Amino acid sequence: MVCMAKVIHDAIHGSMKIDGVVLDVVKTPEFQRLRHIRQLGLAFLVYPGANHSRFEHSLGAWNVAKRLSAELGLPRDEALLLETAALLHDIGHGPFSHTFESIYKHYTQEYDHMRLGQRIILGKIDITEGNGGGEIPEILERWGIDPKAVADLILGKHERRYLGQALHGDVDVDQIDYLIRDAHYTGVAHGIIDMERLLKVLTIHDGELVVEEKGVEAVEGMMVARSLMYSRVYFHHTVKIAEGMLTRALEFALEEGHLWDFWKMIDCRVLVELEDLEGFPSEIVKRVKYRNLYKAAVLAGAGELSSEEKRELLAAYRNVKKRQELERKLASEVGAREGEVILEFSIADLMLSEPRLKATEINVLMDNGELEPLTKVTPLANALKRRQTPRWAVLIASPEEYVEKLQKVWRDVLFS
Amino acid sequence: MVCMAKVIHDAIHGSMKIDGVVLDVVKTPEFQRLRHIRQLGLAFLVYPGANHSRFEHSLGAWNVAKRLSAELGLPRDEALLLETAALLHDIGHGPFSHTFESIYKHYTQEYDHMRLGQRIILGKIDITEGNGGGEIPEILERWGIDPKAVADLILGKHERRYLGQALHGDVDVDQIDYLIRDAHYTGVAHGIIDMERLLKVLTIHDGELVVEEKGVEAVEGMMVARSLMYSRVYFHHTVKIAEGMLTRALEFALEEGHLWDFWKMIDCRVLVELEDLEGFPSEIVKRVKYRNLYKAAVLAGAGELSSEEKRELLAAYRNVKKRQELERKLASEVGAREGEVILEFSIADLMLSEPRLKATEINVLMDNGELEPLTKVTPLANALKRRQTPRWAVLIASPEEYVEKLQKVWRDVLFS
Amino acid sequence: MVCMAKVIHDAIHGSMKIDGVVLDVVKTPEFQRLRHIRQLGLAFLVYPGANHSRFEHSLGAWNVAKRLSAELGLPRDEALLLETAALLHDIGHGPFSHTFESIYKHYTQEYDHMRLGQRIILGKIDITEGNGGGEIPEILERWGIDPKAVADLILGKHERRYLGQALHGDVDVDQIDYLIRDAHYTGVAHGIIDMERLLKVLTIHDGELVVEEKGVEAVEGMMVARSLMYSRVYFHHTVKIAEGMLTRALEFALEEGHLWDFWKMIDCRVLVELEDLEGFPSEIVKRVKYRNLYKAAVLAGAGELSSEEKRELLAAYRNVKKRQELERKLASEVGAREGEVILEFSIADLMLSEPRLKATEINVLMDNGELEPLTKVTPLANALKRRQTPRWAVLIASPEEYVEKLQKVWRDVLFS
Amino acid sequence: MVCMAKVIHDAIHGSMKIDGVVLDVVKTPEFQRLRHIRQLGLAFLVYPGANHSRFEHSLGAWNVAKRLSAELGLPRDEALLLETAALLHDIGHGPFSHTFESIYKHYTQEYDHMRLGQRIILGKIDITEGNGGGEIPEILERWGIDPKAVADLILGKHERRYLGQALHGDVDVDQIDYLIRDAHYTGVAHGIIDMERLLKVLTIHDGELVVEEKGVEAVEGMMVARSLMYSRVYFHHTVKIAEGMLTRALEFALEEGHLWDFWKMIDCRVLVELEDLEGFPSEIVKRVKYRNLYKAAVLAGAGELSSEEKRELLAAYRNVKKRQELERKLASEVGAREGEVILEFSIADLMLSEPRLKATEINVLMDNGELEPLTKVTPLANALKRRQTPRWAVLIASPEEYVEKLQKVWRDVLFS
Repeated sequence: MVCMAKVIHDAIHGSMKIDGVVLDVVKTPEFQRLRHIRQLGLAFLVYPGANHSRFEHSLGAWNVAKRLSAELGLPRDEALLLETAALLHDIGHGPFSHTFESIYKHYTQEYDHMRLGQRIILGKIDITEGNGGGEIPEILERWGIDPKAVADLILGKHERRYLGQALHGDVDVDQIDYLIRDAHYTGVAHGIIDMERLLKVLTIHDGELVVEEKGVEAVEGMMVARSLMYSRVYFHHTVKIAEGMLTRALEFALEEGHLWDFWKMIDCRVLVELEDLEGFPSEIVKRVKYRNLYKAAVLAGAGELSSEEKRELLAAYRNVKKRQELERKLASEVGAREGEVILEFSIADLMLSEPRLKATEINVLMDNGELEPLTKVTPLANALKRRQTPRWAVLIASPEEYVEKLQKVWRDVLFS
Repeated sequence: MVCMAKVIHDAIHGSMKIDGVVLDVVKTPEFQRLRHIRQLGLAFLVYPGANHSRFEHSLGAWNVAKRLSAELGLPRDEALLLETAALLHDIGHGPFSHTFESIYKHYTQEYDHMRLGQRIILGKIDITEGNGGGEIPEILERWGIDPKAVADLILGKHERRYLGQALHGDVDVDQIDYLIRDAHYTGVAHGIIDMERLLKVLTIHDGELVVEEKGVEAVEGMMVARSLMYSRVYFHHTVKIAEGMLTRALEFALEEGHLWDFWKMIDCRVLVELEDLEGFPSEIVKRVKYRNLYKAAVLAGAGELSSEEKRELLAAYRNVKKRQELERKLASEVGAREGEVILEFSIADLMLSEPRLKATEINVLMDNGELEPLTKVTPLANALKRRQTPRWAVLIASPEEYVEKLQKVWRDVLFS
Repeated sequence: MVCMAKVIHDAIHGSMKIDGVVLDVVKTPEFQRLRHIRQLGLAFLVYPGANHSRFEHSLGAWNVAKRLSAELGLPRDEALLLETAALLHDIGHGPFSHTFESIYKHYTQEYDHMRLGQRIILGKIDITEGNGGGEIPEILERWGIDPKAVADLILGKHERRYLGQALHGDVDVDQIDYLIRDAHYTGVAHGIIDMERLLKVLTIHDGELVVEEKGVEAVEGMMVARSLMYSRVYFHHTVKIAEGMLTRALEFALEEGHLWDFWKMIDCRVLVELEDLEGFPSEIVKRVKYRNLYKAAVLAGAGELSSEEKRELLAAYRNVKKRQELERKLASEVGAREGEVILEFSIADLMLSEPRLKATEINVLMDNGELEPLTKVTPLANALKRRQTPRWAVLIASPEEYVEKLQKVWRDVLFS
Repeated sequence: MVCMAKVIHDAIHGSMKIDGVVLDVVKTPEFQRLRHIRQLGLAFLVYPGANHSRFEHSLGAWNVAKRLSAELGLPRDEALLLETAALLHDIGHGPFSHTFESIYKHYTQEYDHMRLGQRIILGKIDITEGNGGGEIPEILERWGIDPKAVADLILGKHERRYLGQALHGDVDVDQIDYLIRDAHYTGVAHGIIDMERLLKVLTIHDGELVVEEKGVEAVEGMMVARSLMYSRVYFHHTVKIAEGMLTRALEFALEEGHLWDFWKMIDCRVLVELEDLEGFPSEIVKRVKYRNLYKAAVLAGAGELSSEEKRELLAAYRNVKKRQELERKLASEVGAREGEVILEFSIADLMLSEPRLKATEINVLMDNGELEPLTKVTPLANALKRRQTPRWAVLIASPEEYVEKLQKVWRDVLFS
């Protein structure tokens, strides 16, 4: 007879006892792999404490799901499904989490970490490169859980709408964990939210996850926390520059036929393999490693761009080839080498479906029994939609020597 | 030779070393009296941890002022003035802080805690009832500080505008301390703000206290924290009911000639003296003591009131006699005794100058060197102005047996 | 239909949902009275944040008991009994908690807060002075709980030994809550203990509450925390002086026939009634109120005292009359008035049964299945027994002008 | 003109402003390299949050040094020296911090991270492998600091004894930072110490760093925290197993001529290079990566070993060859392959100079002006010396299938 339960000590939720399907999933190499994927990509170059991993966050999201299931009084099978999906919702993340996702579609057959996660859960792919992966569907079935249902739920799909919302809605267990966790590790206080309160004011009404009127402030607090964390951490321009640099290094390597399985790798391997390549990738990784980053030449807000210009940038955001072409034009115009000018966007993030910033449409169950959309109940909800996160829409960076020139020519190069 | 410095251990700011004028002021009976004034009135009946005192907060505000003076690089005389004013800004508070301030003008010659504070600082009044008070102006002068300048500054007046703003502005040392402190003692996370960051992003520009562009999120965070703390704590309807009940007990006592010096008293004395009176005041204090509070019969939002009705309520808010009359009419209509129906407003608080909620007009020093009002820089600023804090504008409470009747008749009684 | 559950927001444990017998007990005036009893007596004069109440702590101890019951897997009836006893364990506390307990036996028919608590639980006494008290036994019986069992358990008595130990043992729910809570409010970090871990490493073995070997560090940490909190807070000499002063004021009042029911009162009433008496009590209360305290003339460690001298002091500690006599002799010797010299002991606390410092005899369930006393497993356990808490054994204090004289004469006066 | 100051946001100390020599040192590749060295080696396999780096800790130690310099009132040149040495005290750490230090002497010409640090500070070695390192001595000289003095101070040597003690004594800035930091990231509360208090009670007396009598509890608290963190985290047997496994993988690689510069590498490179080797090293790294660790077969306490046996183990601890030989004998005896049985010791750590556990000889400046060793003032000091940290002295681990056999044969194999 082997160990039936294990206690894991988490910096946020304290001692968490895991057993059953959770223990079995945690032991898989797919799940252990998440220990080696940084939750916030290269944010540790700006916030030195941000070294936490997807492993912790996945366990944390599971723990919040467990707490929420209990507060909502979910029947055992639904609770188990929600908790397992929370545990597995990030299982498909590649090296440095979101860092390289913008080039997944262009360079691989994969879409993003969620679609990859689905394929892992269904046993269609082995992300551990032959190191014992692939057992997750079996484990789930052994414990009476349908892998298909889990795979759907991590995208928010389930006939019981509240289950999808609990994992992937306006106020969900994923966000509750990551906001608190990211605040703890970066030391940026905004992320601190009132988890205990949130868990107590969420309820199910007509098959939907809603917040009771008395809990509106808790939801407002969470939404604002999220918006501020975007500005201060997730879209911090220096973080975006570092991630942009590493992405360009990877693009170079890919174009030359290396690292084709990069999305299966852990952070360490990407760094070391790029460093060991000749030329540009190696140079960039050393710059990242020793934090000798490009400087921001342009940080232009949405207000400084015409609709036409925004459309142009959006096209480049959506098409890797086009973006690379613009970068090459900028580089050549200022005398820099290819790869020395990088172009990053946030306007697009706002216009497209950025999961963590999407519309805040949760309904409020008023004391009089009626449902009202949150936007009717508090002006903060709409203000947050309009709030720019961050205040730059386009960011151009390069080695210091090209900064001044870039400031002069960028508009002409990009929009002529 | 006596002790020249003292260390006080604060739950928020840790060990604080005090000496010089600060030590001398802290030793006065006026300042020690603040140990016995609860910072949040009767909020401890809803948040059991909210027993903290104006003493702690005053020291805390001084500590934040000291930190801010250093960050801003203020010259020694300005720093000393700001710090002393922060230490003394609440010296005029009466029992249970804001609880009874709405009846000061009607029943006493005093206005509010700030005007009272000024008179104490200038030596025009002895709030210690003959127990060694009155030395504050002497102490200040002995250390080369002009009492008049301190008295002006606690109302935000000084020819150097930034000094007034630092104590009594949109982002001031008073708020920074009370938000963090109230969050610590109530356990309501919203109050947690990024003090370290705020202190680093405030700067002086053209004689004005402004925030650097990179610090906008810290200010947004603080403003939202304040708004949420209003909703969750300061204007919690149960707190307002308890404070309304105690105010009515005091009004009864005053009408019968007792407790005329109530504004000099500490919390304990008001409670005990009211309990020892015959009849209504004693009954009410026992209800408060044992938390057997009136129930909310009506909690009507601003949206449920016509402009005419709002005007009517505002008049009652401004005139104690009129408010008492309406309460009597309501009581008589439902068969309750005088004092058993209480009427509280928050609409008025919003329309009038409520210091903690006033317009958020701080300017932002943009990276390009220009000043922009915060409302231009983030949509949150305007949204917070429109946000109702709390969502009720009029509150009617009574013993449970009259609740239903009151719900039927209140509009007719109040607005006919 | 009335409210069946309530959420109370605690600064330590967050949102706590209470219902059933807990809700009914919390609503009684006996329990609400605890809001007005400071947990740490006059410690707020040294740690300005220490204004927290027995109300919070009682709810906190209940919450820890609930957590422990679940972790231990207690059957429902035992869990209910333990939780109710934790809720009620401090119900008999008088004003300023432990401050006046040394004179209970001499001036009243009561022993201490635990014996008083038992009588309240059994309905033999009404501590609310005719304000609706006395219903606790009825409430307990209505929910199927035997009041006698609760009354026994708060003294640690139960045929199931582990129940007694859980409430009143070496590692008990009472201590877990008060150490964390007192650390939070005083800001003294020592009290921070690893509650989550403690709850997970306690287990029942042969009818006894023991700690698993892997949890030894958690217990060591708690024991050290307790010892350091004694030195830093509970026996801080300035706290002891303030409490000694107030006790002398009360003794004077009692000798003159006032305040005979003092042990039923809340903090406020004791303060105000003493202040309103003529002469010495009023003078002392004003000194306490405005923190104009006596100075320590003598702080002699146990090492400075012979066995004979210790015996002498112990006798004075045990006999109020004898202690008062010595104080009078000291006062007269230095020309002070009666009551101006106070004598406090801690040696006696160590020699007698001081509940919070008692021997640490919890057993450890070793990995090999055997039980070992904690003192065998770690040298810290015995060291803590020998550690003096505080380092003074006798404390003599008086107004400043008598300090020097007292330092010269005290030994002659006390030991001749 | 370039950036003259920078703000780094630390999860422990908040916003830290760095400029001058500190900014210049932080920018060097040697210092940036520390971002990639985990502070606690492989402890993240047991405490998932323990991913923090030597970079953060080095900055934190500098910050504490700055605070302490100010509290002690050090002259500017001494302060600068102490602060710079604190910043650089860990500059020589190799991959996974202490993990591989036991084999430095055997496999390299290097001794340990401190001696390596000295050589980096003196410019005698380039740990960045030709990536721009080597400027530290120049930078120090440019700011008027003698590299030799810094190099000596990080080993605790300076003619002013208090400077050495402040960095490398019983209560030093290094420990203050790492205890708080490790507690924050592991979530193990024991590490929480009262930094603010410690900084205020340390003082210089006769050229020595001592603690004032009133600060004894703060020091006791810190010493206990350290001891408990050793038991719970640093010497957790699972951590030791993981680190032992990785060390064996590295030994294999070294014996075959690979990774000779391992002590210059960052964590990532060691992992990836070992994984890419054929055979045993690759197998082990995969076990570590996916947390498929060896099991503890033997965890024998010091009490279970005779003096003779201890002497035997100590010899193996001190001699890598001898330890490897014993491991081979154990492996062969139970039918395991070479490298599948690992032998770790802690008894030796206690008997030898383990910097973080060394004797606690700080002196206390008593209120009467005399110095007393801490061991005289509190029994905890001696108890901590006798406390076993951890409770195992020898640890044998292997794949699960050999565990039972090893338990039967280990004594015979090791001691015959």
